[in-house]
Amino acid sequence: MNNTEMTPQRYAIGIEFCGTAYRGWQTQQAGVASVQETLERVLSKIANHPVIVHGAGRTDAGVHATNMVAHFDSTADRADRGWIMGANSQLPKDISIQWIKRMDSDFHARFKAIARRYRYVVYNAPRRPALLHKQVTHIHQSLNVAKMIEAAQKFEGTHNFETFRAAACQSNQPVRHVKHCRLTQHGAFLILDIQADGFLHHMVRNIMGCLLEIGQELYPVEHIDVMFAAEDRKAAGITAPADGLYFIQAYYPEQFDLPKVALGPQWLNWAE
Amino acid sequence: MNNTEMTPQRYAIGIEFCGTAYRGWQTQQAGVASVQETLERVLSKIANHPVIVHGAGRTDAGVHATNMVAHFDSTADRADRGWIMGANSQLPKDISIQWIKRMDSDFHARFKAIARRYRYVVYNAPRRPALLHKQVTHIHQSLNVAKMIEAAQKFEGTHNFETFRAAACQSNQPVRHVKHCRLTQHGAFLILDIQADGFLHHMVRNIMGCLLEIGQELYPVEHIDVMFAAEDRKAAGITAPADGLYFIQAYYPEQFDLPKVALGPQWLNWAE
Repeated sequence: MNNTEMTPQRYAIGIEFCGTAYRGWQTQQAGVASVQETLERVLSKIANHPVIVHGAGRTDAGVHATNMVAHFDSTADRADRGWIMGANSQLPKDISIQWIKRMDSDFHARFKAIARRYRYVVYNAPRRPALLHKQVTHIHQSLNVAKMIEAAQKFEGTHNFETFRAAACQSNQPVRHVKHCRLTQHGAFLILDIQADGFLHHMVRNIMGCLLEIGQELYPVEHIDVMFAAEDRKAAGITAPADGLYFIQAYYPEQFDLPKVALGPQWLNWAE
Repeated sequence: MNNTEMTPQRYAIGIEFCGTAYRGWQTQQAGVASVQETLERVLSKIANHPVIVHGAGRTDAGVHATNMVAHFDSTADRADRGWIMGANSQLPKDISIQWIKRMDSDFHARFKAIARRYRYVVYNAPRRPALLHKQVTHIHQSLNVAKMIEAAQKFEGTHNFETFRAAACQSNQPVRHVKHCRLTQHGAFLILDIQADGFLHHMVRNIMGCLLEIGQELYPVEHIDVMFAAEDRKAAGITAPADGLYFIQAYYPEQFDLPKVALGPQWLNWAE
């Protein structure tokens, strides 16, 4: 009797995906592909038994990821390289497993994550881009970037994000701790980098929508205080499009020792 | 009688496109979309008469452009802004006109071009990328980049490029002057930047194929001399994939005073 066939091994994986063609990370609707079910289909084939994949966080339709962390269990006896090579040869080109690590069974990609980090990429230029058109959010109006940089800091710290979550958000409580929320400008690109213990539904896109409205000088930076105080989604503005949003990292306690990867998207590391 | 309806105005335009979904720049086959005919269809609608678009150069299926220069004639009386806004609202998302300029009738995008410039983007990492997967060429093997940098210089100057053109190339003569051919490394990215008076069919992709083979140490840098001397396509190696190739600029005599645009792809300007 082969012991490896009996005791399931837990695996953590890091996944890069272009979300344009998917309904989002999670399985929301029968008949519409999600990244999670696409991974489950391929990993189940390689494992030769049904595999369930648990991700660190949910993402909306069209949102990308450079290092979505997930885990699955398998009784199949395969080398790490075999999992990655096998999966990447069968996965669609817009999903790629970047690393795999054997974990103890106390690891859980969702419940053990202590923080998540996103980047939102704005391309600010008069003409729309043709390349990267689904991987950046194009804003043709000129933006007051100094005001946006100032405004981003308003979201740092512990706040009730009721105003900045989707009406459909199912989270029990709307208080989140934002470790950092920084906007930087690099030529025509604006990047919002935000890390929090957790995110509410549409939270990053609603914050970015607010920053874009401040950049267009529709209201002053101080109006964010009024928005927070309202604790009402209707007090905030637009939800920025999914195209520019990237899930870039999930953080876990040191003991799990997951691989360190460069923060994405990759082309931002161009100059490093 | 309206004079603007009688005398055609020549327009130069700069076009960015993602070539993944197209048969190439030029109309090669009935029933398969080219970038040129897609532009012609939209511009003809805006002009309300048939419009022919002449590009600075041809590109293969799957090759991208950040500043393809082209020209067309029209008798329609439209503001520059009207042309761009009208075209960009009707063009598919993977084609975008970036600028337009009224020209004298002696301008010709193809025949007046004195040089063309391409960039080829290699992503060198163990795992394939999911984002940018059609906009870079992924090489998973480790590469001897120092050898590739040395080898790239071998292509500079005036050479008979018979060995490095496609068998199907229809050019009368295979001698071209390469102003520069430089490979640079930026993290996981390798960029070949090459400028010449003109390019033969598959010339950049065959040069890149040769550089990749040298990077994999399949033969030494000096073997390029043997390849040139053979004047035979069979003496060279692979044709590198189209995905990583970008037409980035066409050069014209100063008198035409075309708009200066940053060299693409845009994300390479991230650090500038």
